[in-house]
Amino acid sequence: MRRLITLSLAFAAAAVALPAAAQFQKPEDAIKYRKATFTVMAAHFSRLGAMANGRVPFDAKVAAENAEIVNTLATLPWDAFGPGTDKGDTRALPAIWTEQAKYKAASDKMVAEVGKLNAAAKTGNLDAIKTAFGAAGQSCKACHDNFRKD
Amino acid sequence: MRRLITLSLAFAAAAVALPAAAQFQKPEDAIKYRKATFTVMAAHFSRLGAMANGRVPFDAKVAAENAEIVNTLATLPWDAFGPGTDKGDTRALPAIWTEQAKYKAASDKMVAEVGKLNAAAKTGNLDAIKTAFGAAGQSCKACHDNFRKD
Repeated sequence: MRRLITLSLAFAAAAVALPAAAQFQKPEDAIKYRKATFTVMAAHFSRLGAMANGRVPFDAKVAAENAEIVNTLATLPWDAFGPGTDKGDTRALPAIWTEQAKYKAASDKMVAEVGKLNAAAKTGNLDAIKTAFGAAGQSCKACHDNFRKD
Repeated sequence: MRRLITLSLAFAAAAVALPAAAQFQKPEDAIKYRKATFTVMAAHFSRLGAMANGRVPFDAKVAAENAEIVNTLATLPWDAFGPGTDKGDTRALPAIWTEQAKYKAASDKMVAEVGKLNAAAKTGNLDAIKTAFGAAGQSCKACHDNFRKD
C-alpha cells in the first residue's frame, strides 16, 4: 500500500478535483498538455492525409487505426483552455476567452468532423475518407485562423 | 480536389512511407511526438492515480475513460525511437539503442500492464484498479530507471 501511495504521489501530482480545468495544478501544465494532444493528433491526422492525397498507398487498416487515435485525441484539449491559461508558452489568442460561444462552436465542429472521419475510415472507402478528411481539415483550419497566432 | 491537396500538404508534411520510424521526416519530429504521447498519457494516468489513492472520489466512468485513453496512448511512442533520435531535446539514454531487446521487453511490459489496468477499469472494481495501477506504475518506473535520464 505504501508503494501504491508513493507511486500515486509521483504520478498524480497534477490531478486534483473537478472541474476538469482543475485537473491541472498550474496553468503551464494545462498548456503543455493541450499542446501535446494537438501534436499527437496532428501526427496521426497527417498519416491519414498522406493516404487521402495518394502520397502513400491506401491501407484501410492503417487508416482506421489512425482515425481512431485522432478521434480519441480530438475531445481532449478543450478542458485545458481554462482560466489563466491564456499566458505563457502558447499561441492561443484572447478570442478563445472573449468569444467563448464562437470558440465552443468551432471546437465542437472539429470534434464532429473528426467523428465523421472516423466513421468513414471504418468503412474502408477511400473516397469517403478523402471527403471526410477535407472537411475535418477545414474545421482544424477554421479554429486556427480565428483562435491561434500565426 | 485542389483544396484537399493543399490541406494534405499542410497537414501531412511529416508523413512518408513505411517503416513506422519513417513516419517522421526529421528526428526532432519523432522526439517531439513521443514526448507528447508521454505527456498526454501521464496526465490521464495521474487522474487514475488520484482515484486509486483516494485523493479524489472514485468515479467508475471517469476511471474507465482515463484508462482507455492511457491504453490508446501506451502503444504509440515506441516507433518514434528510431535511428537518429538519440540526440537532441530528449532524456532518452543510449541504452535504448544499445540494449534493444531489454528495452523492447520493458516497453512491452508497460503496454501489457496498461492493458490490464484498462481491463480492471472496465470492471469498475476499485480494488482491481488499485492493484493494476500499482503494477502499471512499476512498469513505467522500471523503464524510466533504465532508459531515461533523471
